[in-house]
Amino acid sequence: MGTDLTIGKLAVLLVVSTPEEEQQLLQVAGRAGYRIYQGRAGSMDPQKIFAAVETAAKRRGLIGEQYREEHALYHSILDAFHGVCRGEVALGSILRSAGLIFAIVRGPRMGGDYSDGEWLAVALYGTIGAPIKGYEHEVMGLGINHI
Amino acid sequence: MGTDLTIGKLAVLLVVSTPEEEQQLLQVAGRAGYRIYQGRAGSMDPQKIFAAVETAAKRRGLIGEQYREEHALYHSILDAFHGVCRGEVALGSILRSAGLIFAIVRGPRMGGDYSDGEWLAVALYGTIGAPIKGYEHEVMGLGINHI
Amino acid sequence: MGTDLTIGKLAVLLVVSTPEEEQQLLQVAGRAGYRIYQGRAGSMDPQKIFAAVETAAKRRGLIGEQYREEHALYHSILDAFHGVCRGEVALGSILRSAGLIFAIVRGPRMGGDYSDGEWLAVALYGTIGAPIKGYEHEVMGLGINHI
Amino acid sequence: MGTDLTIGKLAVLLVVSTPEEEQQLLQVAGRAGYRIYQGRAGSMDPQKIFAAVETAAKRRGLIGEQYREEHALYHSILDAFHGVCRGEVALGSILRSAGLIFAIVRGPRMGGDYSDGEWLAVALYGTIGAPIKGYEHEVMGLGINHI
Amino acid sequence: MGTDLTIGKLAVLLVVSTPEEEQQLLQVAGRAGYRIYQGRAGSMDPQKIFAAVETAAKRRGLIGEQYREEHALYHSILDAFHGVCRGEVALGSILRSAGLIFAIVRGPRMGGDYSDGEWLAVALYGTIGAPIKGYEHEVMGLGINHI
Amino acid sequence: MGTDLTIGKLAVLLVVSTPEEEQQLLQVAGRAGYRIYQGRAGSMDPQKIFAAVETAAKRRGLIGEQYREEHALYHSILDAFHGVCRGEVALGSILRSAGLIFAIVRGPRMGGDYSDGEWLAVALYGTIGAPIKGYEHEVMGLGINHI
Repeated sequence: MGTDLTIGKLAVLLVVSTPEEEQQLLQVAGRAGYRIYQGRAGSMDPQKIFAAVETAAKRRGLIGEQYREEHALYHSILDAFHGVCRGEVALGSILRSAGLIFAIVRGPRMGGDYSDGEWLAVALYGTIGAPIKGYEHEVMGLGINHI
Repeated sequence: MGTDLTIGKLAVLLVVSTPEEEQQLLQVAGRAGYRIYQGRAGSMDPQKIFAAVETAAKRRGLIGEQYREEHALYHSILDAFHGVCRGEVALGSILRSAGLIFAIVRGPRMGGDYSDGEWLAVALYGTIGAPIKGYEHEVMGLGINHI
Repeated sequence: MGTDLTIGKLAVLLVVSTPEEEQQLLQVAGRAGYRIYQGRAGSMDPQKIFAAVETAAKRRGLIGEQYREEHALYHSILDAFHGVCRGEVALGSILRSAGLIFAIVRGPRMGGDYSDGEWLAVALYGTIGAPIKGYEHEVMGLGINHI
Repeated sequence: MGTDLTIGKLAVLLVVSTPEEEQQLLQVAGRAGYRIYQGRAGSMDPQKIFAAVETAAKRRGLIGEQYREEHALYHSILDAFHGVCRGEVALGSILRSAGLIFAIVRGPRMGGDYSDGEWLAVALYGTIGAPIKGYEHEVMGLGINHI
Repeated sequence: MGTDLTIGKLAVLLVVSTPEEEQQLLQVAGRAGYRIYQGRAGSMDPQKIFAAVETAAKRRGLIGEQYREEHALYHSILDAFHGVCRGEVALGSILRSAGLIFAIVRGPRMGGDYSDGEWLAVALYGTIGAPIKGYEHEVMGLGINHI
Repeated sequence: MGTDLTIGKLAVLLVVSTPEEEQQLLQVAGRAGYRIYQGRAGSMDPQKIFAAVETAAKRRGLIGEQYREEHALYHSILDAFHGVCRGEVALGSILRSAGLIFAIVRGPRMGGDYSDGEWLAVALYGTIGAPIKGYEHEVMGLGINHI
């Protein structure tokens, strides 16, 4: 996978990989210039999902103090959240809940190619459904922005 | 990956895997009760992307003759396309183009569990951007529906 | 139905009634102060549906020459069209087609009550689906605006 | 109306008919293979409207225990709700409230034709407006899905 | 600016002008037949922004008692709010907040031209951003409706 | 206006100012570190509006050769276009046309404050309406992005 590693594919693979695959990915990704964080967020309230990703990115140093970096991250999350919601950017207000794994990746658009500066990718993968156990199906979203 | 194979993860992995990984996936997926097709579609016209996925699904027998199956597929494509477009279901009309790999998967929501009937997943992965070579970033969408 | 006749219900009934029911409706509606037109419009191009309703309204004198009346009508059509499209205001661009009956109704919000001036209702009813005969299901939309 | 009875028209007629017309409809519909429920839901919170329709459908046996049936119902409600909201899937958050009659219909797409399996229609009809008595106009939505 | 004064430009200028420019605008606008109000509204809850504009319009007599006037105002606010939100009609639910100046203008579409009746313009200008001081950028919206 | 000059206000003022006001703005803006271009674009085809702004930005050197700069501009245009369209990102397809003045501004978020790097603002102002002369009202949009 090494040579054609890209920021989006890396984010996607991280949220669908097993723990062993993840360890392998982290090594390959580090060599290609990427910084990464992976976490979990689930809620009927979109705000909590946004906050979980933003907090993780700040704590792990994936974004800096300037507003422009927070702005880049926010729109990556929002773009990924569109993929999760598929038309209506809403969860509990329309009686549905999401349980998600998220990945944040910072680095070049294409592995090893620094000519277009740094980019940020946010991938969200998990389930959406009624607030009843098992009444849910998978969802996926990916947001990418320049930083 | 065998035991926790799910229809959505399978569709996602198919569109981001290398040819070798794909062969392995196809074997595992077949044993878990999934039927699969993977293809490519790129255009400034969303209609052509919808048509490419629909035509492939019909030719490969992933959907049958009844309208209800075409209806299930259509909404899976539309849901996945929301992930690609992230807010405005449009390509060329707002001066952007997409080049996508698609996967269609038919089978149980969770590998080997036939208690909730058959489902259909469509994954779209590729790039979106200006109609200028290299002016593009990655996108991803996933749509899942009961069939 | 006489006493609780309202502009929206009247528009809805017109697009789903049989020719005999329609004749009866037209008489009741006329006595309650409503002016009405009913027609058909089908296309993969939303523009043609908008144009068919606008042209009918002008020719039948349901709207006058001032822009404010055209503006009221336009937003009634657009609101009704949202009901037809349910999330993506698009037809052919996402590979679907609509065949619709439309009704335009001008008069009081509630039958016989002129205290809140004139209003305009547009109802759209018909089918949406793939451009394949019979691959379609019903849709309905209603738009109401002050005029 | 007997021969051209369709699932969507039936749902629409149910929400705009008088109690006498409704009794007649129920008889005709039963003979054509339809199961029906009609109720009321009003709120500034979309979640309560979704919950009212879902609860009614489950209690009256219009959907079964499998998630796929709940999924079909959910998207019928969401589609109908788009007709009510016409662009922004929101009520109280943008200072408006809806008072609705809903109908749920399960059966063939076209009366007596079982060749394309069972479908589900949800119709919503009522008023939307400011949270001030009488400051409201009519709205209508229809959602149809295979089940 | 006198001769080409229009309702929308006037609303836009009011929300971006200094207090001195504003006084001058108010005089010119009054002579051209416009009634005006300017205020402030900031919240993570869109409802409060809608309520602030509606309350101001009623208290200052910019709209009358009929529902049709409230309806015209509501849609002007909603249209302007689209410009503020740019795709997702939501604030706090997706972890963002807005601090806005609003202007309401009632009068002819074009200064001094009463041939097309009265219109209503709502302009919103201010900042949107994370709920952290300084993490915000400017936004602008304009909604115009016949009244 | 000097001390509280901001990138968005500057873009807004440019599209609504008279030629004399514009000359004055250009001088003040230049001293505060802004680069500016103003042009016109009108069409029933959104693509042409996007292309007009992109072409102008490239020719005038407001964006450089890297994709990240084109990406920043594209989303500024799209955000501003949301303000113009107010819900449906479409023109001719729903039978309407727009005639717009656009301004592109590059520089600090707040005049003279370079601590948060460079930002890009796109303002669009003009009219939207039926493809009939005079059947139109004003619209305004503003999009801001880090670059």
